[in-house]
Amino acid sequence: MTAVWVRGGMIVTASDVFAGDVWIEDGVIRQVGVVRPSGEAHIIDAPGMYVMPGAIDEHTHMGMPFNGTVSADWDTETIAAAIGGTTTIVDFAIQRRGGTLVEAIETWRNKADGRTAIDYGLHVAITDPRPEVIAEIPEAVKRGVTTVKVFMAYKGEMMVDDTALFQTLLAAREVGALVMIHAENGDAVVLLQDRLYEANKRAPRYHAESRPLEVEAEATRRAIALAKLADAPLFIVHVTGREPMEEIRRARHRGQRVYGETCPQYLLLDESYLVLPGFEGAKYVCSPPLRHASHQEALWTALAEGVLQTIGTDHCSFNFREQKHMGRDDFRKIPNGLNGIENWVQLIYTYGVCQGRISLSRMVDLISTQPAKLMGLYPRKGTLAVGADADLLIYDPSGSTTITAQTQHQNSDYNAYEGFVVQGKPQWVLLRGNVIVQEGKHVGTLQDGRFVPCSPYSAAYGEKAPFDSRQLQAELVDA
Amino acid sequence: MTAVWVRGGMIVTASDVFAGDVWIEDGVIRQVGVVRPSGEAHIIDAPGMYVMPGAIDEHTHMGMPFNGTVSADWDTETIAAAIGGTTTIVDFAIQRRGGTLVEAIETWRNKADGRTAIDYGLHVAITDPRPEVIAEIPEAVKRGVTTVKVFMAYKGEMMVDDTALFQTLLAAREVGALVMIHAENGDAVVLLQDRLYEANKRAPRYHAESRPLEVEAEATRRAIALAKLADAPLFIVHVTGREPMEEIRRARHRGQRVYGETCPQYLLLDESYLVLPGFEGAKYVCSPPLRHASHQEALWTALAEGVLQTIGTDHCSFNFREQKHMGRDDFRKIPNGLNGIENWVQLIYTYGVCQGRISLSRMVDLISTQPAKLMGLYPRKGTLAVGADADLLIYDPSGSTTITAQTQHQNSDYNAYEGFVVQGKPQWVLLRGNVIVQEGKHVGTLQDGRFVPCSPYSAAYGEKAPFDSRQLQAELVDA
Amino acid sequence: MTAVWVRGGMIVTASDVFAGDVWIEDGVIRQVGVVRPSGEAHIIDAPGMYVMPGAIDEHTHMGMPFNGTVSADWDTETIAAAIGGTTTIVDFAIQRRGGTLVEAIETWRNKADGRTAIDYGLHVAITDPRPEVIAEIPEAVKRGVTTVKVFMAYKGEMMVDDTALFQTLLAAREVGALVMIHAENGDAVVLLQDRLYEANKRAPRYHAESRPLEVEAEATRRAIALAKLADAPLFIVHVTGREPMEEIRRARHRGQRVYGETCPQYLLLDESYLVLPGFEGAKYVCSPPLRHASHQEALWTALAEGVLQTIGTDHCSFNFREQKHMGRDDFRKIPNGLNGIENWVQLIYTYGVCQGRISLSRMVDLISTQPAKLMGLYPRKGTLAVGADADLLIYDPSGSTTITAQTQHQNSDYNAYEGFVVQGKPQWVLLRGNVIVQEGKHVGTLQDGRFVPCSPYSAAYGEKAPFDSRQLQAELVDA
Amino acid sequence: MTAVWVRGGMIVTASDVFAGDVWIEDGVIRQVGVVRPSGEAHIIDAPGMYVMPGAIDEHTHMGMPFNGTVSADWDTETIAAAIGGTTTIVDFAIQRRGGTLVEAIETWRNKADGRTAIDYGLHVAITDPRPEVIAEIPEAVKRGVTTVKVFMAYKGEMMVDDTALFQTLLAAREVGALVMIHAENGDAVVLLQDRLYEANKRAPRYHAESRPLEVEAEATRRAIALAKLADAPLFIVHVTGREPMEEIRRARHRGQRVYGETCPQYLLLDESYLVLPGFEGAKYVCSPPLRHASHQEALWTALAEGVLQTIGTDHCSFNFREQKHMGRDDFRKIPNGLNGIENWVQLIYTYGVCQGRISLSRMVDLISTQPAKLMGLYPRKGTLAVGADADLLIYDPSGSTTITAQTQHQNSDYNAYEGFVVQGKPQWVLLRGNVIVQEGKHVGTLQDGRFVPCSPYSAAYGEKAPFDSRQLQAELVDA
Repeated sequence: MTAVWVRGGMIVTASDVFAGDVWIEDGVIRQVGVVRPSGEAHIIDAPGMYVMPGAIDEHTHMGMPFNGTVSADWDTETIAAAIGGTTTIVDFAIQRRGGTLVEAIETWRNKADGRTAIDYGLHVAITDPRPEVIAEIPEAVKRGVTTVKVFMAYKGEMMVDDTALFQTLLAAREVGALVMIHAENGDAVVLLQDRLYEANKRAPRYHAESRPLEVEAEATRRAIALAKLADAPLFIVHVTGREPMEEIRRARHRGQRVYGETCPQYLLLDESYLVLPGFEGAKYVCSPPLRHASHQEALWTALAEGVLQTIGTDHCSFNFREQKHMGRDDFRKIPNGLNGIENWVQLIYTYGVCQGRISLSRMVDLISTQPAKLMGLYPRKGTLAVGADADLLIYDPSGSTTITAQTQHQNSDYNAYEGFVVQGKPQWVLLRGNVIVQEGKHVGTLQDGRFVPCSPYSAAYGEKAPFDSRQLQAELVDA
Repeated sequence: MTAVWVRGGMIVTASDVFAGDVWIEDGVIRQVGVVRPSGEAHIIDAPGMYVMPGAIDEHTHMGMPFNGTVSADWDTETIAAAIGGTTTIVDFAIQRRGGTLVEAIETWRNKADGRTAIDYGLHVAITDPRPEVIAEIPEAVKRGVTTVKVFMAYKGEMMVDDTALFQTLLAAREVGALVMIHAENGDAVVLLQDRLYEANKRAPRYHAESRPLEVEAEATRRAIALAKLADAPLFIVHVTGREPMEEIRRARHRGQRVYGETCPQYLLLDESYLVLPGFEGAKYVCSPPLRHASHQEALWTALAEGVLQTIGTDHCSFNFREQKHMGRDDFRKIPNGLNGIENWVQLIYTYGVCQGRISLSRMVDLISTQPAKLMGLYPRKGTLAVGADADLLIYDPSGSTTITAQTQHQNSDYNAYEGFVVQGKPQWVLLRGNVIVQEGKHVGTLQDGRFVPCSPYSAAYGEKAPFDSRQLQAELVDA
Repeated sequence: MTAVWVRGGMIVTASDVFAGDVWIEDGVIRQVGVVRPSGEAHIIDAPGMYVMPGAIDEHTHMGMPFNGTVSADWDTETIAAAIGGTTTIVDFAIQRRGGTLVEAIETWRNKADGRTAIDYGLHVAITDPRPEVIAEIPEAVKRGVTTVKVFMAYKGEMMVDDTALFQTLLAAREVGALVMIHAENGDAVVLLQDRLYEANKRAPRYHAESRPLEVEAEATRRAIALAKLADAPLFIVHVTGREPMEEIRRARHRGQRVYGETCPQYLLLDESYLVLPGFEGAKYVCSPPLRHASHQEALWTALAEGVLQTIGTDHCSFNFREQKHMGRDDFRKIPNGLNGIENWVQLIYTYGVCQGRISLSRMVDLISTQPAKLMGLYPRKGTLAVGADADLLIYDPSGSTTITAQTQHQNSDYNAYEGFVVQGKPQWVLLRGNVIVQEGKHVGTLQDGRFVPCSPYSAAYGEKAPFDSRQLQAELVDA
Repeated sequence: MTAVWVRGGMIVTASDVFAGDVWIEDGVIRQVGVVRPSGEAHIIDAPGMYVMPGAIDEHTHMGMPFNGTVSADWDTETIAAAIGGTTTIVDFAIQRRGGTLVEAIETWRNKADGRTAIDYGLHVAITDPRPEVIAEIPEAVKRGVTTVKVFMAYKGEMMVDDTALFQTLLAAREVGALVMIHAENGDAVVLLQDRLYEANKRAPRYHAESRPLEVEAEATRRAIALAKLADAPLFIVHVTGREPMEEIRRARHRGQRVYGETCPQYLLLDESYLVLPGFEGAKYVCSPPLRHASHQEALWTALAEGVLQTIGTDHCSFNFREQKHMGRDDFRKIPNGLNGIENWVQLIYTYGVCQGRISLSRMVDLISTQPAKLMGLYPRKGTLAVGADADLLIYDPSGSTTITAQTQHQNSDYNAYEGFVVQGKPQWVLLRGNVIVQEGKHVGTLQDGRFVPCSPYSAAYGEKAPFDSRQLQAELVDA
């Protein structure tokens, strides 16, 4: 494999921005700075561009079964992801009722392997928490699946009760697995749904009314309490507004190891989309639902201040004409989810960095370094550091484009961010040193991506433990 | 100037920890990673060691006149600083009553130049806020002094009133200067002091009783209010406890640009030291005073969570036998201040990192990167990035020692941390590529240090603006 | 029935303290002030004494089945209550699994009628929330039972899930019933209990370890969330510490109708009692458990500030030698509860009023007026106002005594407040104009007490609706 | 003096609402209840009406010199007050620069005596805090002036600095005087005013821009801090919005004795009035200024929850055509203040009680009982209790009227509440048993009102100490 020499870009890490070359050998970053080439190299000239670690989206649902249909699949969506600057995703292997965790992991590995343009890791979701299932957590960790998802909503399908959540926290903690929470009170949701339905309130907007913010804030508080009792770390995903965010803040400020994620849709879209004319609102049905726009600034501040640690897309893409229409007469049947993986990096850059809400380094931290640390992918992934995989996103900040479904690569008949103007675009994307996107075009294959095992969470670091770098260290001195 | 090659260490930045070499030319970092040397080089082998940017102590008082005496001076204290791993300090040029800011800056430059072992920048303290003095702020900024200190205490000496503080905030904002606050209500302090003195309460402990936490919390809140009204950024130094810290938190979480510093003494010492037998308590008299130990954990959490951004020493060293004894019969006459610059890095490493309160990267952030960004020294200082000054601290984490005045280099007859055990020690220290500490011993001269101009604060970045790196970028591509 | 003339006392209401006589006819207060007698009257001279409305304990468990035994019964405990200054209790009718609410109410009425020295009302506790049971709430209200208790703990016995709680809130709201919450996460408690038991931690102290404050704070937050979603008022009983209290405060300050009670044991006892030598700790086992003493001052402040509205005893008395010993080898089998109804008024007077934590009027508010308003007994009960039942407590504030089981009237072999010194004592107690306690001695019978129906909660008043007083008003003008 | 018999009304106290007669002899309430007359009496039939203690407005400025003009005077405004249901005001005696407190008190007594339709007490405002002036506080207390006002704003006129405020708190505490605060940072206000003026921003709206909420929140926090340091109680008047209210809440919840008042204008008017066309905005210029309407609900909740304790009018009435026009070209010259004393009771009843924000009893508490307790007028004033002055407000809740300047009794050419619809009206008003308002019409004279000395604040009660009622108590028993 030939060397790669990225020349003259502006290197961006989670803490620094500086001019420098990057020299890559064997798919790994070997030098940063004023490089003197040691041989042949493929040269990429990057002046005027940002050279960053590839984005890591720790929250995707590819080919996810939901309400009798299936979300857009690995083949199309990982190419869209690559084009958008994402080099690793962490997807959810969902336990089948009656099935096992190992089965879920194998099923998802089979779905993905050979059909993914980028690297991927897996979470495993416990939906049927029999004792023997909880006892499988150590085996999952051995297989490199170190995050366990628990749904506090979707009653009758994926929801588990407090006993199972508590047991999962206890079991996870023993082996360094991190529990990840969908925080909504499922009992309350079902009651609210049924009351709305019976009152003939069946349009998409009632999806949101059946899942008010209080439902999320309560479940967030509950999960935090159980994690404290179990002395286990906790990761709350898709935080949508001020109250649940404040629960996380309070917990962190009393010293608890609680982490939080929000998503582009909660930062940029709002509940007014749900009342678009006709059935258009269904495009924006996701859980938890979009909130009032007044929550957005609070979320941005929480990202800037470190109250929330990551941004994930919760990409779960359905098309409008068939799939979303399954809930034409009953909002409860609209598949939950929206797309976002193709444009999220551009959106965060435009509305976060360019508008002064977060710095460029903080963006890299939020979309790459922190997800890698939290998932146990760091330092192999998530940073532009010596020894790391050469997963690079070379971003050209010049020019602006308008997002539209007509030109997208996501397999859907709509784009949730239709009409949003974004600044700049991913120009090259490298995966372990291989160019998979060149001047904005996908030039790789669906065989490029590999499964990446995650390491267990390490309390000692406040993050997952770094792999042992003594070997490289020794090599450097011996050289 | 010959190249330097630091081999095989574990490089630590504010976001990353990875094995790698560092290659230095012309006093600047040129390469990081698996270096292939391009010529002769001085080699430092660093396996098993942390290679970090040198510490930046943005809060020192060298040769500071106070109550008719003068604190320990540049010659001894900057050597102690270097031995302790600090490569840059930012000291306070104090305006003389009746004098000008330019005069203060020149006075301090004259004190320091040729008598400092490490680089330094300057803040300027306004103590006599005549209109023409406030009008000098742009000139100070031109001279590279971009932080303006205002004392809300020390009535009759350095204290200024709210009008002057507000005018300073407005004037500073125009030119990107950052206002730095000593937050204590000076009116209240004087009344409390006099009441204690009259009640025959004259021992060192009453120094603390005359400056209770409420005095600090109030002034912190007031400065934040005035900064908000002036739409100016603000930097609150030496935060000692929970209440003032919470004021900063609330301001930041509503989006205000307020920054906070705490000091090792507030993290590690407490008010019980003030009641040591005899007159020993005087050694620990500083303002604001030491607090109850219960505040320490709250401050550590605030550092970990980003509520506070930097640690500074407030090093202001007096000897016990003569200087502290000036207040033998009246706590009001004890010179305020204590030493700390020689040991602060070891202390933060030992009690912060080794005890799991902050990560190694967060330590680098707090003692080097964030101070550099906030002071406008970044990216020339404060990071181990290509193009930055090669100010390196190579820290050997093995072994432990006990701090004692008997072996210290600080010019004092006591050490505030006497008896504290610390883990590891600075082994080599480089200043712009020159080895100034070798195997723990100072090998440089008092001519090594230079004045470093600071850049103005930049709201656009949430930090001071980086220097223009397009030149280096161009050079890299042209190479 | 002859008139009663209480002369020359200091009348205390929830807002006022003033000298005045009280004139009673037909068991009802007719005049307050400088009375001119209209005929014969039984005279009670009360100079130097406080004349207050009788205390209302809205939280008792008389003859309560628990873990296979039964708490002390109506005959003894209501006499002890009368001697202690309590003229009305509201006890809990507990639904039998498989039974109905009406059955529970009838069972409790049968237990109490003819065996109670004082008046009583009833709450009904839903423990088996079948749809037809929830549908009985209107019938309960018709029978004068307007508060519905829900246990979020005691899994497998009385605990109901979130769905049932939510449905109860919705149903209660329709008819003005107020839902009353035992807030502890029962799932978590059982898991923690079992882990402790398996770890051979079986002594009384582990009862408290199995129910940490977080378990209570979480459930409090959850109940508040569900009440908000149901737009229903809520009453959280036996709040034990700062965190659950803060949840109530936050809800109230955003305008939600949430009320809170605490108990003497949480104000005056603490977890150190649980580690008394031998098995003594079992005397203090109750749920939620006693907390660290540092919570007490926060609770007193919450009472003074109106964050909490009432004090109730949660009197549920078991004897030590047989009943508490059922859990000799397993803390899970210790009957939960302790006594308090005989001494609570004296304790609140001594440690609340005499120590300056609450005013005398606020004491009357907390132990009589607010409970009456919240329960729907007001203005018939809970106030010393014209037209109200002449339930009077005449308290002599002189002298002090020491509480001891040896002289108590509660039917138990211990008193939870053994050794507490109290100031003053109830001298006379009147129930609807009848003297039932004379100079500290019970002179009534077990036929004195009557069932008092409660009115529904009224949102319009922020409290339960007052009875219609137009009749009395008309009579006054016609007179 | 003949007896008065108020028959058949609905009596309202701070804690109770019940039907009853009131019997008055010698200007004092003698009986409440089913009265049997002991002789001749003037009869007032009150069925369908509320019989309450007369309102006490503890915040008025009658004949107040301000910016070279004088506010509407005692003769007209106290009649308007009586018609509106107010029976006592507490006005501000303002120290003349160079003058003494005693002089101020005498000046105000001379202004008021013989020219007031209702009773009055006095606060004294320290504006020139020379040591001998602060030393006069005990003399003021002896003269029945037990509240000392300190202005933190109005720089160059009434403002005092932190030293004087702190000294005042210390001196006041010694003799039970209560310090009352106008909380705005005067230094900041002047700077903001001047900047606006220089920027040609001179219209009424800029009055508000020169005094943003932050200016008030800061000063509130500062006064609370100084009071805590002085261990003195504190009363913050005219709280306008959420942030200063939250400062009071936090102080109270940590146990500090801090009280707060808000005014009808902050509950009902808002900053939009300041931008009315032409110069109309000047009518609404007061300090602190009107805020955004979003603060109103927070203030109502704070009143309901006991975070704020009283409502006062801050009545300071200027006419529009001459007086307000003094600031035609410069908002700084508009006399600060607006009217309100005639309608405040109706407004609080209509928008507070009728709209369900506070209960009827809480209204009585806020406008009569709490002001009386805090000012040291209780229990002589502020309650409908035996032994109290028979200051009664008999309010007819039927019918509604629209407020308009055309029919008002306040001496002004406008009414700040023009067009507000109010429910019910004061029908009779009694002052010490004398009817001064009969069927809505003033039937008294300007000789009716008397000076009422206030008692000192008593920490023991959490309120000012009640007068000694042992005499009446003895009389009752002897009778």
